[in-house]
Amino acid sequence: MQLSIGIVGATGYTGFELLQLIHRHPQARVAWATSESSAGKRMSELYPTPDETRLVRFADAPLHKADVIFLCLPHAASMDAVARVRSADVRAIDLSADFRLPDPSVYRRWYKHEHTQPHLLAEAVYGLCEVNREQIREAALIGNPGCYPTTVNLGLWPLAKARVLGPRIIVDAKSGISGAGRKLRLSSHFVEANENLTPYNIGYAHRHIAEMELILGPHAPGLDVTFSPHLIPVNRGILSTIYIDVDPTLSEQAVRDLYADAYADEPFMHLLPPGQVATLRHATYTNRCAVGLTPLPKPGRWVVTVSEDNLLKGASGQAVQNMNIMFGLEETAGLI
Amino acid sequence: MQLSIGIVGATGYTGFELLQLIHRHPQARVAWATSESSAGKRMSELYPTPDETRLVRFADAPLHKADVIFLCLPHAASMDAVARVRSADVRAIDLSADFRLPDPSVYRRWYKHEHTQPHLLAEAVYGLCEVNREQIREAALIGNPGCYPTTVNLGLWPLAKARVLGPRIIVDAKSGISGAGRKLRLSSHFVEANENLTPYNIGYAHRHIAEMELILGPHAPGLDVTFSPHLIPVNRGILSTIYIDVDPTLSEQAVRDLYADAYADEPFMHLLPPGQVATLRHATYTNRCAVGLTPLPKPGRWVVTVSEDNLLKGASGQAVQNMNIMFGLEETAGLI
Amino acid sequence: MQLSIGIVGATGYTGFELLQLIHRHPQARVAWATSESSAGKRMSELYPTPDETRLVRFADAPLHKADVIFLCLPHAASMDAVARVRSADVRAIDLSADFRLPDPSVYRRWYKHEHTQPHLLAEAVYGLCEVNREQIREAALIGNPGCYPTTVNLGLWPLAKARVLGPRIIVDAKSGISGAGRKLRLSSHFVEANENLTPYNIGYAHRHIAEMELILGPHAPGLDVTFSPHLIPVNRGILSTIYIDVDPTLSEQAVRDLYADAYADEPFMHLLPPGQVATLRHATYTNRCAVGLTPLPKPGRWVVTVSEDNLLKGASGQAVQNMNIMFGLEETAGLI
Amino acid sequence: MQLSIGIVGATGYTGFELLQLIHRHPQARVAWATSESSAGKRMSELYPTPDETRLVRFADAPLHKADVIFLCLPHAASMDAVARVRSADVRAIDLSADFRLPDPSVYRRWYKHEHTQPHLLAEAVYGLCEVNREQIREAALIGNPGCYPTTVNLGLWPLAKARVLGPRIIVDAKSGISGAGRKLRLSSHFVEANENLTPYNIGYAHRHIAEMELILGPHAPGLDVTFSPHLIPVNRGILSTIYIDVDPTLSEQAVRDLYADAYADEPFMHLLPPGQVATLRHATYTNRCAVGLTPLPKPGRWVVTVSEDNLLKGASGQAVQNMNIMFGLEETAGLI
Repeated sequence: MQLSIGIVGATGYTGFELLQLIHRHPQARVAWATSESSAGKRMSELYPTPDETRLVRFADAPLHKADVIFLCLPHAASMDAVARVRSADVRAIDLSADFRLPDPSVYRRWYKHEHTQPHLLAEAVYGLCEVNREQIREAALIGNPGCYPTTVNLGLWPLAKARVLGPRIIVDAKSGISGAGRKLRLSSHFVEANENLTPYNIGYAHRHIAEMELILGPHAPGLDVTFSPHLIPVNRGILSTIYIDVDPTLSEQAVRDLYADAYADEPFMHLLPPGQVATLRHATYTNRCAVGLTPLPKPGRWVVTVSEDNLLKGASGQAVQNMNIMFGLEETAGLI
Repeated sequence: MQLSIGIVGATGYTGFELLQLIHRHPQARVAWATSESSAGKRMSELYPTPDETRLVRFADAPLHKADVIFLCLPHAASMDAVARVRSADVRAIDLSADFRLPDPSVYRRWYKHEHTQPHLLAEAVYGLCEVNREQIREAALIGNPGCYPTTVNLGLWPLAKARVLGPRIIVDAKSGISGAGRKLRLSSHFVEANENLTPYNIGYAHRHIAEMELILGPHAPGLDVTFSPHLIPVNRGILSTIYIDVDPTLSEQAVRDLYADAYADEPFMHLLPPGQVATLRHATYTNRCAVGLTPLPKPGRWVVTVSEDNLLKGASGQAVQNMNIMFGLEETAGLI
Repeated sequence: MQLSIGIVGATGYTGFELLQLIHRHPQARVAWATSESSAGKRMSELYPTPDETRLVRFADAPLHKADVIFLCLPHAASMDAVARVRSADVRAIDLSADFRLPDPSVYRRWYKHEHTQPHLLAEAVYGLCEVNREQIREAALIGNPGCYPTTVNLGLWPLAKARVLGPRIIVDAKSGISGAGRKLRLSSHFVEANENLTPYNIGYAHRHIAEMELILGPHAPGLDVTFSPHLIPVNRGILSTIYIDVDPTLSEQAVRDLYADAYADEPFMHLLPPGQVATLRHATYTNRCAVGLTPLPKPGRWVVTVSEDNLLKGASGQAVQNMNIMFGLEETAGLI
Repeated sequence: MQLSIGIVGATGYTGFELLQLIHRHPQARVAWATSESSAGKRMSELYPTPDETRLVRFADAPLHKADVIFLCLPHAASMDAVARVRSADVRAIDLSADFRLPDPSVYRRWYKHEHTQPHLLAEAVYGLCEVNREQIREAALIGNPGCYPTTVNLGLWPLAKARVLGPRIIVDAKSGISGAGRKLRLSSHFVEANENLTPYNIGYAHRHIAEMELILGPHAPGLDVTFSPHLIPVNRGILSTIYIDVDPTLSEQAVRDLYADAYADEPFMHLLPPGQVATLRHATYTNRCAVGLTPLPKPGRWVVTVSEDNLLKGASGQAVQNMNIMFGLEETAGLI
């Protein structure tokens, strides 16, 4: 099978990463890619790459020539674009937050505006591959997970599923600067970010908590997440250090077994042996998610360290993984 | 007044930093500096500096020519060297951990070996300037605080002093690579550390907790600290993100007032206004300690962000501050 | 003596650096500092600093309350501001390029616009301290040298003065990102600059060559400079690798002696011994300029490596050095 | 076709990179990998990777089970290992310098010791794919090119081939720290290398010049190369800024045409359009070599900027490219 791919919004970091992944994919090729601000230009004019893909406006993109369309647009801007894609009856993988939360009122509460396509929310599947694989196979519309929530959800899923996860969770997350996008802002200026470390948006309920509640909440009654992101001076990668309580009657081995069972056949989950912690380098430039389990001296307390590449497993890599599942391809195709 | 300074162990990062601070200090000059491995060499052969200080062996150092001697030796190696300095009746500022914990049995428990100079522990003062200033003035021997504990102790001291700090404390600390010293090890290799982030020594009771118990423990019954250090790819600086509970009956303003009162006249404490968090850059290349106070949505929960330069306020800068206090100099002399 | 200082344009990197230098200077204090875009704000709102200096508009600055005024404005914008300062009969140190080139037609040729204050050019002194110290003492107006030319001029001055420098010079210069300023631009975005190295503006006659011709030209007939700047992923510092020909009848020692003589009493020139090359770290966070001399196998060919901190010796540090000379202070005051 | 691969010396940076490339290659698989110091361990114990390849001693490696063997050993250590591989009649790709220079006396002159396998030099082919592709097809033994020379040779080959390259060449090269290997040394310590830039081994005839003479020398009589390498604070990548003279009667377009012709069908050569320069990011994490051509104002003078990933096109990537050519595979297999 050779899939034709459309990419809406190809000039940001996730769009460019996606384009490179598709070029490398043995069963997919780029049919078209869009940009409103750079229509008419080639990618080689925007990035240091020989990629000569010429960008078109979304309005000019031949939707029907694509087997699947990826949308890399900002939150809120994506809703109506997805609707257009679905009206053309093309399957869509949306990398924004617009189709991650099934309940429009939950969306409104966290994102502070009305969802214009509530009927499409009904058909959307939250594309966390290791958790929702079966629904993804049949999905016409994927809400591709956020980068931070993917680390937390994959890092705690085996415990939640087994209903042994305590409700109080502290996530101290650290992200490379590409997570803030290619837009110019002082906090992404080299001289400001380099040799620095910056907590940001701490102290209140961060939007990303919504996706943690979506996946973990049903299995961890009273879930109560404190989420503190930090910017670190690296290009790529997220490491989340997660402080949790687990049913103290479980032995250390029993906890490890829950993870081993849950992720036994997962090609991208890298479960670390006892004594090892996840580092950024376990995951960067791969689609992997590394998980380290560290018990604390007091029974029932654990630190879970989780890392991923924010542009791959945290965004475009997981999007391609979703595509592979949707079209019955080898799940790792183009991702190793 | 012009003080003559001896430095024992001048070739590590803290020793070199100290040497530079003394060169810059208006009322101090370097009398001699020692190194066992590089005796006979000049500092300019070891560092990219025009500093032509020639290193001597400790055994050859004219102790009595110094008004005060700084020791930058590894833990355990410092005890006997300090004893020699004190026998010569010269005041000493020890940057190792050997004279930080007054109780030799506590020292043995955390550092796994016997203290050979328990009588000197009796006279030693823990040199956390903002807390122990009065005792420092008269001290003949200072145990200069550790870098990590300084962030935690200064970040929580106003709450502990007011006895409103809850016992459960989670410290997610991030340190630049100079904190691991100049010794060659794979984790400090550029290619391994750069574009990486590494939790280390997590999951058990880290030695640095001893100093937190020393300062905060008496004021926070049942103190229970989880301490998770991480290596980040910067040269200098520590940022601690501290998750605490505070007496929930205190208003946000009341909490802030405790800090404002405690640090009103402290030249090196930089208390940040509401809405701001400490970043590395608030502190690096200065002797300052920056503190940001962020309330969480649930009453009584706070995140305290604290930053310092690990080589300055976390080591050599605080050592000079201690010297300034001991000799009645302007406390900021040579430090701004 | 206690000098009162005015700073025009305090919010860029050179302005902020200057402000910090003055705060640290034992014989100077900031009287006022200006910003058009941030008037009314305090520095602590713009930088991670406790500096509470409140910014005023230039039009509101009490010029006469300053003994000397530093101007950190962009090229072309500085000319008329300097004129206002000189009309108020206050001495001025201008960090822009507007008063570096004495001949208005030369200025026009390189900077592509007319000089509006040609009469002031007549009184301006090019503030390369090690070369023009005597004129600086009496100067009312200093054109503070550019960062790149300072490395080349100080790196080659002893040879030019002795008239043994061949005309063909290739300068391969590497600069930290702060040299591009705090303005937001894609090339200064962390993700673009980090893990990257970018030649820029190569292939044509770069403006900075004008200052090299100013200092070296009169002593090296037919001077023919190729200048290739590169952006490197560090915050601060410039290293220039300079390929030159020297009169081949001079022995290696004779060449070294020219430098030793020229810089014998210079507190900020760090002449490296044979076998050593300048590195960035020789100079960053200091006002020093380090120079390494490396002969090539073929007689008469040398590589000169020169480093400085672009914000200190390359800008604000040299500006303070100029102030110290102008007012008869210790030349190193506030700079070590 | 499915090739079985042996890797000798798999634990250094080039060995590990090669292992990853083979894992990703659609027509190759790792049969065995060796390490003397880490025999018995798995790669996952040495690197942050899920790669469970277990290392054996070279003496225990089943040579005959491999279709081709890559050797990633230090210079001088590789000669005899290659001889053993060739005795077993297995094709070899040697990443050391031992089989790059066909003349044993030239080898002795640059590497300061005797070549023990001069008869094998006769059959060895210098594996610069874009230049020697035809010989590589039939080769039993490849001397894989050095990282620095590859940038210079590919950057200048079209001019040399056309015999329009002037003899005097200045190469100002900048390399990421992985080029210095994983061995612990002070110059690779994070704190020493970060925020620094270090020229090294400048001023004398560097070994790498031998490979430039090998490729360019026959076409550029009197070739006279000055080569100045610098360490820059990035993990990967080399950028060479090359100052050359070209026959001044050639128009700018004629020079560009030479490159366009020479590299028209080369999948890994990225020839940049007029006005663009090569940056590290054009090449890192790819097997590409990017070339920018910049004329200087004076006729016949050019600056050529060339970049590559030192671990890919500069080492393991080119080694795989050689394998692809030797076995008649798609030349880009496993490399995009």
